[in-house]
Order: sequence, then C-alpha cells, then structure tokens
Amino acid sequence: MNQKNSLESLLNKLKDKGIKETQILLELERSFLDTDPATFIDHQREERCGYPEVIYGLHKSAERILSASREILKLKTNVLISRINQEKANILITEFPDAFYCETAQIAYIGDFIQKFDSKLLIISAGTSDESVVKEAYYSALAFGLKPTLIQDLGVAGLHRLLAYKDELSQADCIIVAAGMEGALPSVVGGLTTAPIIAVPTSVGYGANMEGVTTMMAMLSSCASGLSVVNIDNGFGAAYAALRMIKTFEKK
Amino acid sequence: MNQKNSLESLLNKLKDKGIKETQILLELERSFLDTDPATFIDHQREERCGYPEVIYGLHKSAERILSASREILKLKTNVLISRINQEKANILITEFPDAFYCETAQIAYIGDFIQKFDSKLLIISAGTSDESVVKEAYYSALAFGLKPTLIQDLGVAGLHRLLAYKDELSQADCIIVAAGMEGALPSVVGGLTTAPIIAVPTSVGYGANMEGVTTMMAMLSSCASGLSVVNIDNGFGAAYAALRMIKTFEKK
Amino acid sequence: MNQKNSLESLLNKLKDKGIKETQILLELERSFLDTDPATFIDHQREERCGYPEVIYGLHKSAERILSASREILKLKTNVLISRINQEKANILITEFPDAFYCETAQIAYIGDFIQKFDSKLLIISAGTSDESVVKEAYYSALAFGLKPTLIQDLGVAGLHRLLAYKDELSQADCIIVAAGMEGALPSVVGGLTTAPIIAVPTSVGYGANMEGVTTMMAMLSSCASGLSVVNIDNGFGAAYAALRMIKTFEKK
Amino acid sequence: MNQKNSLESLLNKLKDKGIKETQILLELERSFLDTDPATFIDHQREERCGYPEVIYGLHKSAERILSASREILKLKTNVLISRINQEKANILITEFPDAFYCETAQIAYIGDFIQKFDSKLLIISAGTSDESVVKEAYYSALAFGLKPTLIQDLGVAGLHRLLAYKDELSQADCIIVAAGMEGALPSVVGGLTTAPIIAVPTSVGYGANMEGVTTMMAMLSSCASGLSVVNIDNGFGAAYAALRMIKTFEKK
Amino acid sequence: MNQKNSLESLLNKLKDKGIKETQILLELERSFLDTDPATFIDHQREERCGYPEVIYGLHKSAERILSASREILKLKTNVLISRINQEKANILITEFPDAFYCETAQIAYIGDFIQKFDSKLLIISAGTSDESVVKEAYYSALAFGLKPTLIQDLGVAGLHRLLAYKDELSQADCIIVAAGMEGALPSVVGGLTTAPIIAVPTSVGYGANMEGVTTMMAMLSSCASGLSVVNIDNGFGAAYAALRMIKTFEKK
Amino acid sequence: MNQKNSLESLLNKLKDKGIKETQILLELERSFLDTDPATFIDHQREERCGYPEVIYGLHKSAERILSASREILKLKTNVLISRINQEKANILITEFPDAFYCETAQIAYIGDFIQKFDSKLLIISAGTSDESVVKEAYYSALAFGLKPTLIQDLGVAGLHRLLAYKDELSQADCIIVAAGMEGALPSVVGGLTTAPIIAVPTSVGYGANMEGVTTMMAMLSSCASGLSVVNIDNGFGAAYAALRMIKTFEKK
Amino acid sequence: MNQKNSLESLLNKLKDKGIKETQILLELERSFLDTDPATFIDHQREERCGYPEVIYGLHKSAERILSASREILKLKTNVLISRINQEKANILITEFPDAFYCETAQIAYIGDFIQKFDSKLLIISAGTSDESVVKEAYYSALAFGLKPTLIQDLGVAGLHRLLAYKDELSQADCIIVAAGMEGALPSVVGGLTTAPIIAVPTSVGYGANMEGVTTMMAMLSSCASGLSVVNIDNGFGAAYAALRMIKTFEKK
Amino acid sequence: MNQKNSLESLLNKLKDKGIKETQILLELERSFLDTDPATFIDHQREERCGYPEVIYGLHKSAERILSASREILKLKTNVLISRINQEKANILITEFPDAFYCETAQIAYIGDFIQKFDSKLLIISAGTSDESVVKEAYYSALAFGLKPTLIQDLGVAGLHRLLAYKDELSQADCIIVAAGMEGALPSVVGGLTTAPIIAVPTSVGYGANMEGVTTMMAMLSSCASGLSVVNIDNGFGAAYAALRMIKTFEKK
Repeated sequence: MNQKNSLESLLNKLKDKGIKETQILLELERSFLDTDPATFIDHQREERCGYPEVIYGLHKSAERILSASREILKLKTNVLISRINQEKANILITEFPDAFYCETAQIAYIGDFIQKFDSKLLIISAGTSDESVVKEAYYSALAFGLKPTLIQDLGVAGLHRLLAYKDELSQADCIIVAAGMEGALPSVVGGLTTAPIIAVPTSVGYGANMEGVTTMMAMLSSCASGLSVVNIDNGFGAAYAALRMIKTFEKK
Repeated sequence: MNQKNSLESLLNKLKDKGIKETQILLELERSFLDTDPATFIDHQREERCGYPEVIYGLHKSAERILSASREILKLKTNVLISRINQEKANILITEFPDAFYCETAQIAYIGDFIQKFDSKLLIISAGTSDESVVKEAYYSALAFGLKPTLIQDLGVAGLHRLLAYKDELSQADCIIVAAGMEGALPSVVGGLTTAPIIAVPTSVGYGANMEGVTTMMAMLSSCASGLSVVNIDNGFGAAYAALRMIKTFEKK
Repeated sequence: MNQKNSLESLLNKLKDKGIKETQILLELERSFLDTDPATFIDHQREERCGYPEVIYGLHKSAERILSASREILKLKTNVLISRINQEKANILITEFPDAFYCETAQIAYIGDFIQKFDSKLLIISAGTSDESVVKEAYYSALAFGLKPTLIQDLGVAGLHRLLAYKDELSQADCIIVAAGMEGALPSVVGGLTTAPIIAVPTSVGYGANMEGVTTMMAMLSSCASGLSVVNIDNGFGAAYAALRMIKTFEKK
Repeated sequence: MNQKNSLESLLNKLKDKGIKETQILLELERSFLDTDPATFIDHQREERCGYPEVIYGLHKSAERILSASREILKLKTNVLISRINQEKANILITEFPDAFYCETAQIAYIGDFIQKFDSKLLIISAGTSDESVVKEAYYSALAFGLKPTLIQDLGVAGLHRLLAYKDELSQADCIIVAAGMEGALPSVVGGLTTAPIIAVPTSVGYGANMEGVTTMMAMLSSCASGLSVVNIDNGFGAAYAALRMIKTFEKK
Repeated sequence: MNQKNSLESLLNKLKDKGIKETQILLELERSFLDTDPATFIDHQREERCGYPEVIYGLHKSAERILSASREILKLKTNVLISRINQEKANILITEFPDAFYCETAQIAYIGDFIQKFDSKLLIISAGTSDESVVKEAYYSALAFGLKPTLIQDLGVAGLHRLLAYKDELSQADCIIVAAGMEGALPSVVGGLTTAPIIAVPTSVGYGANMEGVTTMMAMLSSCASGLSVVNIDNGFGAAYAALRMIKTFEKK
Repeated sequence: MNQKNSLESLLNKLKDKGIKETQILLELERSFLDTDPATFIDHQREERCGYPEVIYGLHKSAERILSASREILKLKTNVLISRINQEKANILITEFPDAFYCETAQIAYIGDFIQKFDSKLLIISAGTSDESVVKEAYYSALAFGLKPTLIQDLGVAGLHRLLAYKDELSQADCIIVAAGMEGALPSVVGGLTTAPIIAVPTSVGYGANMEGVTTMMAMLSSCASGLSVVNIDNGFGAAYAALRMIKTFEKK
Repeated sequence: MNQKNSLESLLNKLKDKGIKETQILLELERSFLDTDPATFIDHQREERCGYPEVIYGLHKSAERILSASREILKLKTNVLISRINQEKANILITEFPDAFYCETAQIAYIGDFIQKFDSKLLIISAGTSDESVVKEAYYSALAFGLKPTLIQDLGVAGLHRLLAYKDELSQADCIIVAAGMEGALPSVVGGLTTAPIIAVPTSVGYGANMEGVTTMMAMLSSCASGLSVVNIDNGFGAAYAALRMIKTFEKK
Repeated sequence: MNQKNSLESLLNKLKDKGIKETQILLELERSFLDTDPATFIDHQREERCGYPEVIYGLHKSAERILSASREILKLKTNVLISRINQEKANILITEFPDAFYCETAQIAYIGDFIQKFDSKLLIISAGTSDESVVKEAYYSALAFGLKPTLIQDLGVAGLHRLLAYKDELSQADCIIVAAGMEGALPSVVGGLTTAPIIAVPTSVGYGANMEGVTTMMAMLSSCASGLSVVNIDNGFGAAYAALRMIKTFEKK
C-alpha cells in the first residue's frame, strides 16, 4: 500500500464519518502541500545568502532528490547534492547524464564548475583514511567557485612530510585541516601559519576515539589559538565556512 | 525447534524427574498464562485513562501484533499500532483490509478516524528529514480524535518561512515542534506564541548530534520559558501529551 | 618550606650522597632553566605568526605573570593577559599603573590600543549572562588592532531584537556569536547573513546544559551551513580566529 | 579598579592614539548602550506573550537585579525574580520592603499575588529533598495568577501515600510532578490519571544519579505515555508550561 | 586459508629461518595449547564454587561450543549454554537431540532439570518486551535447580496489575525484577516487600534510554533501600545471584 | 526574613486582594501540612517492611533531623541517621546525649545496638580510602541487628592479603565488597566463594575513575557471575540489601 | 561511473568553461599526486624510526592494500598488514601466495618471521573471547622480530589458573595483558611482578561495559602502580610498545 | 565526639544489652585491627615487587600519614608520600625535619636520593601549566633511583622549541610526555624517536577538554604507534612505569 493510497483511504474514512467535505479539502490541501516538502525549494536563498542551492541527500530517496533537483534547475543553472550514495547517483545520472559524481566524496553536482574566487584555499588531511571527508570539501569548494588545492596524508607522526609543504601552508589564504584519531594536525599547522584554519574532525579511529567525538573535542581544546571547528566528517561545512570568508572579503 | 516444542520437552523432562504432576501443572498454567502477554490486554485502561488502546509494535512479531489486535477488537472499535514496519503491516492488512497504514510514520490504525475534539493542534517540523516523526504525531493525533494541522520544513536557518506562518502559530491551541540537529526551532516558536509547546527532538543529524541526544539536551536547555520535551523521535508521545491536555480542558 | 628551599635541600642531599658535583650542577642548570618557563618567551612568534604575545593567566601565579610580562616588554610594546582575576590584576597594576583591566572579561592589557585593521567585526551575544565571554572577545579584538562592535542580549526567544539589528548583521565582515543554553543564535544568524560566523558556546545554563557541552554540541550540529565553533567560553579564541581571517585577507 | 574606571582609561588611551573623537563617541555610545543590558527590558513581551516579566537572578549581581526591577516597575505592577539567594534578596528588600521572598524556593516577588485562572494545578514531589524545586514551581505559579496546590513526599517506594491522594490526582487539570533519584513518580502518576503531566527531574541523589541527568533521562524514557519533561530542577519552567496551557485553554 | 594452514605456513617459515626446531616445538606446543582454550574446561569450578558449568555462547562458534560441551559432559551430567542463537543451537541439537533450547531466551541446556532448592524465586518483568531477559533468568534458574515463577507485564504505568500479585510478592523469598525504559518497577516492588530484590535493567527503550544505560543508572539511584543491580539484559547473572543467595542460606 | 514571615506576608497579600478567607485557610492548611514533611513519618513502614526508621541526613537541616527524630521516637525505640556531618551531629547529641556517632561513617544512631540475626555478614574493602563507605555499611548493619565483621585493605594488587582471609571468605553467609579505582576486588572474591556478594563501588580515584562511575560500570561488567551492585559509596544500601536477604531467610 | 571517469568529466567541464589548460594541468597534477596516497610510502621511516612498514587495512580497499604492498616491497623485504579481513586477504594471497594470514587476528604478513630480539615478551588474556586481540599482538610481535609467548584464559574469577603461571610471570621481561569486561587482570598481575606491563582493554562485554570504554577507564584507574594502557582492542599497538621498549634496551 | 569515644560508647551499649563480653572482645579486636589500616604496612612488597614504599596522601589525614611513615621507617630507610599538600607536609616536617618537600609536585620524601639506574629518562611537558604533573614524575623518579631530566614547555603549536631538543629525544632510553588540552605532543614525539613513550594526560584545559578526559582519549587514539598511556595527572604512575621498565632491563 503506497502513500498515495493511504491518503485516499484516509480521505474516504473521513468522508464516511460525516466530516464536512470543505474541511477535509482544506485539511488535505494543507496536508498535500506539506507532504512533499521538496517542492518548497528556497529559491530566495541565493538572493538572500548569495550561495548555491544544496540538497542534503542522506535521508532522502532518489525520487525526492530528483524532484528537488528538477525544481531547482527550473530557476538556476546548478545544484550540489551531498551525501548521495552510488545507487541514488545512478538514478540521478540517468536523467542528468552530464552530472558529475565522486563516490569517495558522496557528492554529485549538476552544472558547470566555474571558478569565481581567487583566494588560495588549501585542504589538507592527516591520513589517507580521511579521504572521503577532504574530497567532500574539495568538490564542494569547486562547486562554490573557490580555488582549492588538496594535499593528503600529512599526519603529525611524520613531521617531515608536513614540513615539506611549508610553502603551501604559508601562502594559503585559508586552510581546511582534516584529521581523525587524536586530531593533532590543526594544532601543529596553527603554529606554522597565520592564516585562518578550519578544523574538520573525522570519524577515523576506534575505541577511545568514540567515532570522532574525541577528535572533535581535542580540536576544540587545541593549544593553538584561533582555530575553529566544524562537525565530525563535515567536509561540506568546512568548504562552506571557507566560502563565507572568501566571498565576504573578496567582494570588499 | 519452536517454542511450543521446547515447552513440551521441558514438561517431559520435569515429569521424568519425579516432580509431582500437580506442581508441574500449576507451574505450567502460570507459565503459559504469562508466556503470551498479548492476551492480557488492558481493557480497563480506556475506562481508567479514557484513551484508546495502543500496541507498540517495535519489538513484537507480526503474529503477536495480530493476536493483540484481535483481542482488543473484541471489546473496542479501534486500535492504533505504532512503530510497525511495512512487512508486519502487510500481514496485518491481510486480516484487516480496511486498516490504514503509513509507511513513513510506521503507523497502522484499524477503525475509523473520528474527530472528537475541536482545539487546534499545530504540528510543525524544522526540516523534511523530520517527516517520519511529525507524521507519527499527525496520525496518532488523528486516531486520538484530535484536529491536527501539519506544516513541515520551517527550520530557523530560513526564518522567512517560519514568519510566514505567524497566524497559524498565534491561533493554535497547542503546538508540537519537531526538530533535529541543534533543535533551535522550539526556542524561536516559544518567543512568538503563548500557546503550550511540546518539543520533540529528532535523531536527524550526525557526529556532534549524538543521534538526537544533543538535540534533546538543547531543547531542555532552551532559553524560551515553559517548553516541555518528550523523548527522541517520540511523535506518538507528543500527540499523547496533546491529547492529555486537550481532553482535560475541553471536558471542563 | 618554599620551593627554593626545597631545591637547596635537594642539592645538599645529592651532594651528601657522593654524586659528582659537576653532574649535579649540570642537572640543576637544566632544572633551573626549565623551572621557570616564563623566561622562555617566544619572541620569535610574532615574526613567525605575526601576532601579539599573550599570557594565559588562569593557572599562573601573579609573580609568574609579572615576570613573564617584564620579559616580553623588554622586546615588545604590549602584552595581553587573559583569564586574570582581580586579585592578580591588582598586583600587575601596582607595577604597570597604566595597564587596562576589565574584571568582567578577566582581561588585562599593557600597552596602547591601536586599530590596525578596518574590517567590521561584529560581536553579539544571546543573553546578558554571556557578558564575560563577549567582553573577553571584545577587548582581545581591541588589543589585536581589530575594530569590534559589541551588541548584547539578542537571544532567539525574542526575535524582534535580533531583527532590529539586521543592518549591522548584513554589513559585518565577520561575526562572533556567543550563546549559552540551547545555543540557537548562530543558526538563526547564519540564515540572515553571508558573512563568516564564529560561534562561541558559553557555559550559561544548568542541568541538561552540561556546563556548556550541550551548547557546543548543538552549535556543531547547526542546520545553518558554514558555521565554525570554538571552545566553551573561549571569547579570546574567537577574537583570535577573527584576527587570522582579517589579517590574512586585509594584507592581500 | 572598577568597570567605569576601566572604560575611562580605555577612552583616554584611544584618544591619545589619535583615533577620531567622533568615532570613539560612536563606539562608546554603542558600547555603553550594551554594557548594561538590564536597561533593555522587554516591555513588549507581555503584550506579545501575555506573560509577566521575570528576572533570572543566578548570574546577576544584586545591583543589576535592582536596576532591572526598577525599570520594569516603571511600566508594570509586578516582577518575579528567580534563583535569587538570601544575600541578594536582603538588598532587594531594603528598597522594596513589601517584597515577598522564600529562601527555600530562591524566589522573590514584588507586587500582589492575584489569582487570574481557575484551573486546578496540582504540584507533587517524590521526597522532601525536592522541596526547593516544588516551591519554586509553587510560588512561580502563584505569581502567574494560577491556583496551585502543593503535596510533598509521595515517592513510589511508599505507594500508600500516593494512593491516599487519588482524588486530588483525578480532579487536577494539570499536574507538575517533581522527583529525583530514579524519577519513577511521573510514570506511576501517568497511569493513574488522564490529566496533562509536566515532569520535573531534580538533582536529588548521588553517584549513578549523575546530578539529575539519570532522573531526566529516565523520565524521558517513561513507559507512561504523554508525559513531557523540563530541565533538571526547573520548577519555574514547569509552572510556566502550566501557565501556557491554562492561559491558552481558559481564554478560549 | 584456514587457521590450521596458517599455523603450518608459520611453522615452515620459522624452520626455514634456521630457528632451532626444539624451540619451535616448544613454542608451538604452548601455542597449540592455548589456541583452543575450549579444552581448558574449569572442571574444578563446581567443586570450588559449587555451581554448574556454563558456556557463554555469544562470541563462540558452534564448533567451539560443541567441543566445550563434549569436554564438560565427560565429567559432568549437564551444561548450560547462554546467548546461543537458533543457528548455533541447531548444530548443537544435531549432536545432543535431547537438548532443551528456548529461542526467546537464547538458552540451551543439556541434561535434566532437577529442582534442588525449595526457596520461592519470583521473576517479574515490567513489559512484554523484556521477555527475552526474564526467560534467560527463568531457564537459568531451572538449570541451577532453583524453583522460579515467572510473571510478566507488571509495569508501573498500570499499578492495578502489580497490586493484583501482592500475595506472590509477599510470599517470595527472592525477587528478580526486570524492567526497561525508566526502570521504575524495582523501586515500587521495593516498597511493597521485605524480600531481597535483584534488579535487571533491560535495553528496551530508545533515545534517552541510551540502550539501557539510563535504566541501569536509574535502578542504581532507586529511592527504595536495599536493591541491588546486575548488568543490562543480564537475566543469567540475576539468576546466578539468586543461586548464590539461596544455596548459601538453604545449606545452613 | 525567615520562612514563617514570608508565609505571613503571603497570607496578608492574599487577604488584601479580596480572596476569600476560607479559601486561603484551606490552601494554607494544606500548604502548612506539606511544608514540614518531617512530620509525616512513615510509622507504618516497619510493620509493612519490617525495617527500622532511617533519616537520610544529607539535604536536611539539623532542625529537621531533630524534629523527625523526636517524632519517630514517640512510637519507636531507635532511629538511624545516615549522611550526617559532625556539625549536625553535635546538635543531635545535645538533645540525645546517648546517641552513637561515627564521623568517618557519617552515621548517628539513637537507641541500643541489639543483634537480632546470626548469619555471618563479612564486609571487606580494597583500600584504606574506602573506610567511610565500609564503616557506613558496618554501623548500618549493627543498627539493623545484623552481625557484621569488617576487614579493610584487601586490594587485588596485593593478593597475599586477600588470600590470608580465605577462611573468613568461605565461612561468610553474605559478603559486602567495597572498592574504588578499577573495582576489581568483587570479581576476585566472586571466584573464591559461593556466597552472595554485594559490590559497592566507591568514589576513590581520580581522572579516568570519573568519581566512581568507572568503578561502578566495571563491577556491573564483572567476569564473575552472580555479583550484584549498589550505587556509588552506598554502604548503607549494601547493608540494607544484606538485611533483606538475611531477614527473609532466617525467618523461614 | 568510476572515479577515473568522474575526473575526466571534471577535466572536460573545466576546459569547456575556458579555464586555462596549464592551470588545469597543474591542478590535476597535484590532484592526481594526492589522489592515491598509497604511493607515498614512508620509506624513510624505518631509517628514522627503525621499525617495519605497516599498512592499516581497515578503511582501505584490497586494491589500495595491494598497491601499497607492492610499493613497499620494492625497497624492503617485508610488510605487515593489520585489520585485514578474509576477503581482502584472499586477494592479497593471490598475488603473494607465501603471505601468512591469520583470520582471528585479522593480520597478514608478507616476508619471513625472523627473531631479532631475545627479551621474553609474555602475552596473556583474561578470557577466550579476547583471542582476536592477543593474536593480533602475538603475530605483530613475531613480525617485529620479538619473542612472544601467548597464554590465554587467565581471568581473575579463577585465580588458580593465573597463579599456576607464576613462574612465567616472574621471568618475563615485558607483559602484555589483555582483558575485557571489568579489566581486572592487569591490576592483579601488577601486584605479582615487577616487569613492565602494557594493558590492552578489549571490547568483550555488553551493557555497562560500553564496548570496552569501561574496561579501558578501569585499567587507567588501576590500583596497581606503573601500568600503562593502549587503545581498546589495540593488540598491534601493545606489541609496538613492547618493540619500542625491547629494541631500545637491547641495543644499549 | 572523636572516634575513640564513639567506639567506647559502642562498647558500653553492646555490654548493656547483654551481648557476651567474649564476643564483644573478639569483635572489637578484629574491628580495632582493621580500624587503623596504616599499621598493615606491606613490608613484603619491596621484596616481592622490588620497589619502595609509597603512601598515597590524598585521602589520608596528617596523623595517618605520620603513623604510616613511622611504621615504614622501622624497617626501611626511605618513604615517598604523594599528593600531600603544604599543610600536611608541615606536620610531617616537624617530625622529620630532613624530609624533602616540593609543593608544586605535592610530593614529600623521607630518606636520601640515591641514583641506582643509569638509563636516561627524559620527562617533557607541552606547557608550563603541566608543571605539577611533570614534577611529580621527576621527584618520584629521583626517589626511585632513576636518572630523570626535565624539559618543560615544548607544546606542538611551537614546533621550533621541540625540534631544538631533537638530540635529547633521540638519546633518551625512555620518555615521559605530559600534555593537556588536545594532548598532541606524544604523537609528534612518537614520530621523532624509537624510544618507549609513556604519555601522561593532564587536566590542563577547560570546556571541551572535559577535565583531561579528552586529552586522555586523544592520546589513546594517537596516530603514532606504540604509545602507552597512564591516568590523568598521574606523574607518579608514569615514573613507576619507567621504573618497571628500567629496573627489569638493567638487571638483565
């Protein structure tokens, strides 16, 4: 019994009970209106906030992602879908064959990647297991029109690799630093550079790592001053924080 | 080896050991009595509490849900089953083809939806991912005879949508507010209206959200006075709290 | 028995035991060197990091704060001391009568406040109980040469006050948002502006607030994209994050 | 060095540095404006929310409580101060000798107690150690114009006392139930009555009680349907929730 | 590559490297000895502790359970296997067709149920969802030679059912009380009887229940004196605690 | 302004407002009745539960403890006061000079210690820092008429001491085992004896010990079967659990 | 759509948008460089740290494990892969048929096991369920050239077994002690020997065990002095800690 | 009423009740024996464990510390007292004027510091606020006969200072690394050296640091292999772990 049927059966039941038809209609109008929230795309947001439309795909069905995408693309030229798995992406690509999709990052993007900002955004990670998070940040940044560079596997237990990238660190305008386990990388980077640093804890680790909670708490307790932190595995949010910063200061 | 067999084998073993038959019978009578608790339907509850019979389906097998439903319907005209998945619902519908079922809400209802109360119950959610929770609240309310209206996707990061529903907020007699993530919506609504507010934290979010625990704790820490909170994802409980309030005050 | 005496007695004991004097001297030299770490002021840091010298006063005695301040002022013209209470500040002011001190912020500053940057830094709080935190941010920002504006008491349960400052929000280049309890203010501000937002959870609240941990977790779970978060009550850290951002982008 | 002096010294420093006086004035005007937030009494709130003005006294000095009270009483005839200790209350009473103060409840009230609503609000507690919480609820309710009755010490380990009050329970229109330790009382009451129940966890207990967190979590997990919960020790909030409910339904 | 092969390949590698054969043999002897710990059945335990042999089946393969059972049955006449699922039980029953198995309780028992003790052990539960836990306690008690009676579904939200069993409560020599959610049942029973009470928290619940941790903490915080508590869902442990008590006192 | 005055002022205010005197009286009667809950001594409890009257002194003033003691002693010959500090005890002793008081245990007892039961209750602790907890258990047991023996400092890091008391362990009818830190002692004792064991976690430790929560959780996770656990530092509760057991089985 | 395709489509999109080809190439070069981090094997590490190359297999695909192994074996003669399941191991063994694999330990090793150190490393466990962890430690130690002996199932609830191995304990140079549940074994061993002890908490247990967190916290709170602890289930880390110790002291 | 009096009054009460005098004497003998556990000094421990006698002073009165010290010094030539504050130390020094005391470390030592071991023990800290912890480790190590060197303030946010001590790091035989906040220092040191590393989390930090729990969890989650961790602030335990290691390997 699909959802439409269940609403019909509800309608009939209510009518049978002698509830006034106008009241039922009013109720159902409201109800239908709200039943498919995907149709309430916030088209004013880019005007208001200046940012692209994003669909958070995790809890949404492929159908709902598709209908939301269609709705957005009536008025805009691109849409970013985050946390979308391969299976849902395949359905999306059937309708939008030009869509970009990266399985590691769980990111899909319909539209063209156009660089709009010149500031240097450096994205680094502590280990190769953080790859899905930094790639979410990387492709989100590309979709936002930022200019990201990605360097992986600079964990603090092998300082020589990090120090080899000292120039990149000192030239960056903004640095996204992802790390799991004890989350020490942002603290070390914070002592090597004056640039703004957005720390992203990842859920890489086990046991005492508490699925990234320890990493996040450690980053918030950093001995390096002026770091700021986003949610666990939130590569998208880190890129968005960079967008807020770069867009605001470049337009000045 | 099914459960009946295991009890039989137990019976034989006990007899073989020379335990007196009367004692075994006494024991088994008690034992059987308690083995299928579904037969102990609390028919006095509606008389005592004035509320409909509800079966919490999560940990129960389809068979136990069915037998409990049959038992209830001998004496009453309706029964609500919460947290029942599609698979179990299909078995229920085979026997009760008129049963209403909504997969999103995981709610089944056997009987007629009859509105018994006139107070305006407004149910709102912060995001589309909270849909299963508000629909659980919505259909529970319908089954209780309440008059609910459902509006979704009014999250605080887009205040314009919430403010567009200011009239609905100010006219409501009771408001159920569901939100996940940081759980800010009840606080904002609490400042816009004098009506009673039942806040429902949802498990929508990840990482620092701690599967809804952060949301719940945040709602309990709200800066808006006089909110009260139910368990995570407990749409049914929120509707029931509304029922307690509305039934008590309308009958006065 | 003070610490100096205990070291002398240790010296004598070691000598009495026939341990070679040179070894003792070597050990003590190292030991003394490390005993008063305040003498190891990191004078290279401003060259390296471009930022002023800061003394974190919480766990330090007035004497250690004084000696560290003297050491710093040999080479530099100012020093900021955070988390310094009235009692320690009185001792500091005896030696540096021109020192600025704000008890609410627990901040002392020796030197002149000189504005070096033009970007608009807006600092707002949800409630009057967050005052110590936003004042720590405000005076830290002043000492860093930033241009902060402070507006207090804009909590989400009274949206009209926040909306009255819409212009300030939209004109700011960077916004520090402090809130306790459920920590909803940054989410609401995040939907009203495109500027970078640094969220500061405060320990204002009780019970389910868990001394600010709930607030912090809630901010990290925000439904508004691109917020970043610092530690609980860390007004200084928020100002420092603003400094990293503004200094990097203004010098471009 | 008091705060005024620190601001003056700040003013002089800024002037000495050649910062334009107008800019300083502008800044200070804003700054002063926000320095004493107590002057921004939300006089529109009662019009908007229909509720009395409340000062949360915990983090505020006696001086700030006094100035806020004076400001409120220019326009209104009463004010409730919660979480105010004996020492601060003494200062308040010096200026307002008719003020009511209850040390157990840590509540002060300036104005007359006038009953405005007829609904029966029953306030019960599990043990005598919950007294401060239920008295906070009781006097808050009196100040709100509600009609509360208080019965203490009905804990579930002595069911006979609770059952002796069965009539009061069944006649109440709204019940506030406070309990510490395992927090079982609301569940038991929830099975005895159909009235709305507001559960207040108290921090009475030790060890596994986790300063009331266990109690709160237990109440939120209650097997009785339709309970709603407020923050730990939040007697005021429970009374306010009752006010929202009773005011809304009595005015219908 | 199975485990035997891997040990052989290890053996060859070690020999190839010129490690002395005697050393390898010694090592392997020790190693093999410890590789299959199931062969180290603690046959002395019943003599030492007076209790039957038990195999905790959760982390063990069917093969290991079988070999351990065979080993035990060489010297004894019965063995209890806890936390064994249907699939493993089927393999066990192939070899021991007379074995008793209850899927709900996840308990298997090879041997005869012989009552050895006369004390009345009452086992009660708050809800039907606690069934697997109380049945684990019930069949463990039967296997231990105790005389258990099981009554289910006596939750505190329906006091009338509990009070209907007042006689059973007052006549019991020892009571095991299992409950999930807020875990209030032991507190209420504790006030109705002077018998020893062993409280078993179950993981029935969701959200704020924290998978039974809230229930356990609540029981440990009980307002009823003299309750003692076992681990979450530990029906076996509760029966064992009853065995310790009854065996000790009956033999006096 | 004491509490009586505040009630009088409340009375006058209510009268001034024209509220009917009878209603005020009714309200106040109820109110006064409940204001001093100490007068509601549960004299029926010993009849019902068979146990002595106990006053939990922690949150109560010396005055309230005194009045409750007087009330109890009208009908009974003894009373136990737990968690009572030296200062309150001094006031108690002024009125009851024969009262027994142990500061370490924070226990006072008015009446005679009369042994009523013969079972051997052994109370042991892991370290000398657990002394206050085991002495609370010891004197509570004495007051209950039990026959306790106390042996301290048998921690598992020095097995030789524990093994030296093997006879005492094997002859005991019930063993209370208190330990802090990692809480290992009950597990070791559980393997050495078949007697019932009541484990008492103590808050002795720091850091990872989490004020005894780790100890408690560890005891509940014990590898020894059939242990049961009471709340942190709950020596009284452990003695009470022993009382339930011994009284029930000795009277058989 | 595989990852290579997605990068190609990205390339084309960027070119279509008129972004300079050189810039794209530069970006891609960097991007490709970092895309397969497995190629950045830290060949200098053994020189620097003196230890073998290890691949942490948990989050890596079989392909990435293979390519990393190949890369390492160009320069070295062995490689250890930890946390590799049977399925991935099968693929590894297809290419490296001589590879050693132990499914219980989830460890693969390519190369010869050559003993390089003579110190006696004793590895013991509390229960048979800890087998996977101690075998991870055992085979890691073998691969490191250490001389491990493994004894399982010495839990503290059966002290006789532990005491039977007193000689092994007193002759060991370093002891790795793994235990789950309450984690008491290291404390007992710590009192029996003066050797260094590395405690490994395992996730064996349920409920209050909190997936090994309780065990870990308990070990860190041990009453035995001088224990040190590694992460939950971290048999590899324990062996590595032993390697650090033994290598450093044997080379002296 | 002191403890002696309370025992006397207890004695009299018991006698008055006609309890046999021999039984009282037996009981009291046992009771007195155990009442002052300080007299049960574990003189066999050094023989058994080879380590000095230590008194953990935190929960002990000055009197008990004194009597324990006297008892120990009858048989041995030295004693270490940890966690002893200035006030208690003053009393100790009155009797033992040659005693060494360091207030920062809260350590007292009676006896001579005699170096017995040659291995290089390096103790480093991340910040000056960790001083009390590293000094506890330093003086404990001195008392154990170890050869410690202490270097403070090498936090990872200023890598240049740490790298300046590269020689000391590479020459050390064992390194104790103390850090608070995010606890990153051990990870970085772990990558720079092959020596054994004992990580000590300190409670330096606030908010997300959770009083050192975050630091501890972060260290246990370190990306550097082979670190082991002791309890929060446990400088003494770290020195003891070093003693176990050095004593075992030097005596070989």
